Amino acid sequence: MLISLRLKNKAERRLKGGHLWVYSNEVDTAQTPLKGLQAGQEVIIEAASGKALGRAIVSPEQLICARLISRDSKQPLDASLIVHRLKVALSSRELWYPHQCYRWVYGDSDGLPGLVIDRFGDVVVIQISNMAMELRRQDIVDAVMKVVKPATIVLKNDGKLRAVEGLEEYVDIVHGALEDNCAPLIENDTNFMAPVIHGQKTGWFYDHRENRAVLNRLVNGKRVLDVFSYVGGWGVQAANHGASEVHCIDASGQALDWVEQNAALNGVEEKLHCWEGDAFQAMKQLKDSGEKFDIVVVDPPAFIPRRKDIKAGEQAYRRLNQLAMRLLNKDGLLVAGSCSMHLGDDRLPDMLRILGRELDREVMIQHIGSQGADHPVLPAIAETRYLKAVFARVLPTR
Amino acid sequence: MLISLRLKNKAERRLKGGHLWVYSNEVDTAQTPLKGLQAGQEVIIEAASGKALGRAIVSPEQLICARLISRDSKQPLDASLIVHRLKVALSSRELWYPHQCYRWVYGDSDGLPGLVIDRFGDVVVIQISNMAMELRRQDIVDAVMKVVKPATIVLKNDGKLRAVEGLEEYVDIVHGALEDNCAPLIENDTNFMAPVIHGQKTGWFYDHRENRAVLNRLVNGKRVLDVFSYVGGWGVQAANHGASEVHCIDASGQALDWVEQNAALNGVEEKLHCWEGDAFQAMKQLKDSGEKFDIVVVDPPAFIPRRKDIKAGEQAYRRLNQLAMRLLNKDGLLVAGSCSMHLGDDRLPDMLRILGRELDREVMIQHIGSQGADHPVLPAIAETRYLKAVFARVLPTR
Repeated sequence: MLISLRLKNKAERRLKGGHLWVYSNEVDTAQTPLKGLQAGQEVIIEAASGKALGRAIVSPEQLICARLISRDSKQPLDASLIVHRLKVALSSRELWYPHQCYRWVYGDSDGLPGLVIDRFGDVVVIQISNMAMELRRQDIVDAVMKVVKPATIVLKNDGKLRAVEGLEEYVDIVHGALEDNCAPLIENDTNFMAPVIHGQKTGWFYDHRENRAVLNRLVNGKRVLDVFSYVGGWGVQAANHGASEVHCIDASGQALDWVEQNAALNGVEEKLHCWEGDAFQAMKQLKDSGEKFDIVVVDPPAFIPRRKDIKAGEQAYRRLNQLAMRLLNKDGLLVAGSCSMHLGDDRLPDMLRILGRELDREVMIQHIGSQGADHPVLPAIAETRYLKAVFARVLPTR
Repeated sequence: MLISLRLKNKAERRLKGGHLWVYSNEVDTAQTPLKGLQAGQEVIIEAASGKALGRAIVSPEQLICARLISRDSKQPLDASLIVHRLKVALSSRELWYPHQCYRWVYGDSDGLPGLVIDRFGDVVVIQISNMAMELRRQDIVDAVMKVVKPATIVLKNDGKLRAVEGLEEYVDIVHGALEDNCAPLIENDTNFMAPVIHGQKTGWFYDHRENRAVLNRLVNGKRVLDVFSYVGGWGVQAANHGASEVHCIDASGQALDWVEQNAALNGVEEKLHCWEGDAFQAMKQLKDSGEKFDIVVVDPPAFIPRRKDIKAGEQAYRRLNQLAMRLLNKDGLLVAGSCSMHLGDDRLPDMLRILGRELDREVMIQHIGSQGADHPVLPAIAETRYLKAVFARVLPTR
């Protein structure tokens, strides 16, 4: 018989409205203590009335102490459910993407909290961030095998979140082999090698795919600057879609080596120029030496990792976009990205408005993109939507 | 010497921040009365301090009594400025769109308040909605001739806003001729005839172009329902991109005749089925006869034309999307559109959340689109952004 967690009066409302998370202060711990529960254990969530609301996995020491995995409280998170969820998630990706390159599983949005799976054709990279999924690791690997039979499966279990539940960090090729520790992928008609073992996160950021596709339409004959380039997701695609010249800035020399390899893969290495260094400093140097670009893309890491970083983070976004705007030609295009969930949707546009006035330029927004269809959003959980890409033309003031 | 309008203390802030509108209650009418000004006249806008903020055109009897046309108070809205603005606007469209089919001028966003120009290759359709532009009608027509030398220019001056400033409604072909009162256009590789004389507004809604392009990627082999189809913008494109069957609903038999003509233009008339009637009733009938679709697109007219209509309008969107959801197959895709500026960005997703819970379905949003790049947004003027298209997969509840 499964343990139940009883919610306080009215605390069931959010779950009934579609949300999946239980906060520890919503649990009636007098009746059903969190103490004594094991991280990763399954429980039944009950309303104050005693009515079962569904089945959840618990993280008893976390603020979000339980996450619903099914509204059917008899449904365990077992091998068969994992296979089913992987299949449903797969069908949502196959509807959108012709190549087998996508985020296959996006945590809560796909009914598998704590699990991310990125697929690079025949290479599948799994990222587990909580105890519940770590305990079901073998079921997950087996389910991946069963559903798509990949040549290679990597466990890239080195995310920062793992420490919270005392999970060790490790990277392991649990099935097949990898050439050069990289996985080949195609994004918007461009070939890449994603450094799935030594790169950031799963090695690749699929989330900006649609925004890069938009940029690719606009780059023909243009001089492009890609700031925080990582392995060249934006820059190499731009070069491959006709940009006359692309300059990539990144703090990591290793990342820039990958940029060069990815450029060579597409035969555009002669258009690519790499600048290793702090993005802010490198942009200032480009400015001081009088460089100008038709298009500047700024796609920084999350400057607002936690809510308390909003003020400092917004300042960083503002400084960055100001530098970017100063590097633009007269009718240039700025692509301002942010992966900070805590940055409100209206913040980047408003920042560009202010910067435009300060620099005496007219800012006209022509497109606002978000994460691709392989990062689906649950409307009940605002946290599932985080990515922004604002395409703004920066004109002389009228 | 031009007349000035002096603003009240602090009322200059919004203009300095990038906005272009002056509300009548912001004018220091004791010093500079609005009475006696002629609609369409040019004035200088001054801060309370007397400092000139720019040049504006006035609508002295409107709530928005003046709109800035330049921050240079010496810059008149003359033939040469109109030509310049048309050229700048053109370059912003040519950056994005290979065919000469787009909204060329989008009012305030392009520095020409009260003026909309849609281009269908060699046919240009002008819509004037205020006195200032009506007075400069000949300059506008001349500027259009000078910049793109079209074969045909139409004045489609029959918008509802015209009555506000006492402008007559009329439609006039002021240059060249039109075959069958229609203009040919290409959108997302599909051919259409836009009924520029007898259709709605300029005859075509370019604003959903990018959203239709997204849908086109998903329709192969699918059974599609297009509700409020008008001339088939969504439906005919879907058929042309591989949908197995497309059903269009519209209240206008005339619009459905155009749907059939547009389908025939692309050789997909056999896939198209038209239903004339009230959208809500037609959908109920389809439901009652057990019809199901893989994809339902609902793109209604603005249900919230004014702020006071928000409550009733939201109810209408809700009823409509509920009907749409009930017509979907098990893993169907709902495309929920809204062109109501007063519907907040979060409202459609939240409505879908609630409907999903009521119908015991899991709603997963895979894409949220807005208006295309030819309807650019000024970040200072929220009103310039109005279009929404939410792409949601509707799954069985987990």
